[in-house]
Amino acid sequence: TDITDKYALSAVLAAKEKAESMDVLVNIAVVDAGANLKAFIRMDNSFLGSIDVAIKKAKTSRYFNIDTGDLGKLTQPGGIIYNIELSNNGLVSFPGGVPITNKEGEIIGAIGVSGGTIEEDHKIASFGAKSILKN
Amino acid sequence: TDITDKYALSAVLAAKEKAESMDVLVNIAVVDAGANLKAFIRMDNSFLGSIDVAIKKAKTSRYFNIDTGDLGKLTQPGGIIYNIELSNNGLVSFPGGVPITNKEGEIIGAIGVSGGTIEEDHKIASFGAKSILKN
Amino acid sequence: TDITDKYALSAVLAAKEKAESMDVLVNIAVVDAGANLKAFIRMDNSFLGSIDVAIKKAKTSRYFNIDTGDLGKLTQPGGIIYNIELSNNGLVSFPGGVPITNKEGEIIGAIGVSGGTIEEDHKIASFGAKSILKN
Amino acid sequence: TDITDKYALSAVLAAKEKAESMDVLVNIAVVDAGANLKAFIRMDNSFLGSIDVAIKKAKTSRYFNIDTGDLGKLTQPGGIIYNIELSNNGLVSFPGGVPITNKEGEIIGAIGVSGGTIEEDHKIASFGAKSILKN
Repeated sequence: TDITDKYALSAVLAAKEKAESMDVLVNIAVVDAGANLKAFIRMDNSFLGSIDVAIKKAKTSRYFNIDTGDLGKLTQPGGIIYNIELSNNGLVSFPGGVPITNKEGEIIGAIGVSGGTIEEDHKIASFGAKSILKN
Repeated sequence: TDITDKYALSAVLAAKEKAESMDVLVNIAVVDAGANLKAFIRMDNSFLGSIDVAIKKAKTSRYFNIDTGDLGKLTQPGGIIYNIELSNNGLVSFPGGVPITNKEGEIIGAIGVSGGTIEEDHKIASFGAKSILKN
Repeated sequence: TDITDKYALSAVLAAKEKAESMDVLVNIAVVDAGANLKAFIRMDNSFLGSIDVAIKKAKTSRYFNIDTGDLGKLTQPGGIIYNIELSNNGLVSFPGGVPITNKEGEIIGAIGVSGGTIEEDHKIASFGAKSILKN
Repeated sequence: TDITDKYALSAVLAAKEKAESMDVLVNIAVVDAGANLKAFIRMDNSFLGSIDVAIKKAKTSRYFNIDTGDLGKLTQPGGIIYNIELSNNGLVSFPGGVPITNKEGEIIGAIGVSGGTIEEDHKIASFGAKSILKN
């Protein structure tokens, strides 16, 4: 099952509202179950470099059905999948990418957030991912 | 001047509504004055290949401040800028990319639409671009 | 022999002055004998898409020691080197790229101009290339 | 606000003079607020590999509004944004990239320098960035 455009947009907007309430300027991307871009918004004055990072966080999260921060624990020097970031045309392995799950527990996409601290990005992404369960 | 996230989103949503009223499934991208992605939405069941085409249409339109269809008239075999599509990491030179102008006549970004016929894509993109003038 | 930074800069500035006198907004790139970027300037409000086109024109001109417009006559459908634009990470085969020759007749680099019509671009590039012979 | 071509050129030339006074051979790139190349010069006999490094330093600095050396402190193994260099088509995260700010404190572009030691590159880039405040 794929996230619908309606839900992708609502996840992006929920994340954006959360970011605004936290006074953080971010880029927010949602990909579908096929890891293809579904919805995106860049807040005014957020980092230009965060466009690509947000999209790559969302893709990375869906590629491996994992929070990107958890992936990062395994990719360090000496880690079991060291430098996997070089695959798939570039992965991002620090926090801010989170799978999106429907009420049945099925992963239907992922959300990536970039522009704040990694803690803020993860918080905003998680909020966006969970927001669609309320519908 | 750069298009704001509020206007970028409203242009995308206006274009999406227009596409729905025409029964066409499209991808819609808005870039800012620097040709950087600002907002994006992919309608359910629209072509996967149209994600990149929509983004490239928006970028192409802003790169040269032109309707992409007008660019295409110049890039055909025998045309004065034949094969320019190979520059800038890939341009799209058929209709569906349109500059976005503010009330003062300044170009503040561009919109790209892909998924329908080139006539439909252009119509939807133009509608989205003009929609922000009503605000 | 390589064009020096002093001459590369003076060629760029001569071309820029010429463009200003013609009321054309362009990007101007100079590459050395090794086809590596040596000097570049983007005039305010010139096309964003012309950055890459100007650099590729300069490189193309030096890659084959030819005016890019002359190359284009050979790359059309049915032409003897059809689609050579796909090589070298993207060539540009319409006017605006011109080899730079020293007083001894040796090619020491090339200049690429993009932003005006192809006639204007070629005129400005030629002016820039010849300007260094006056020194 | 975008850095003008006049200021971009003057920043490049100020940095070049500084490099000459320090006997260092460098490449110097300036990008505008949209992270697009605005001016560039390569000093004679400087490293060929520094062309791309200088441009990527300038872009990286503007992508995240940061001195590239400060970014590098966060991207090491164990760092909070380890391997972010793989995003945005390649970032550079060691010293030599510095944001350019106008008198009002607004970031209007960035400068990247490569060819000397990282201390030298940073010193030259900073000198170039500050030089425009004297105008």
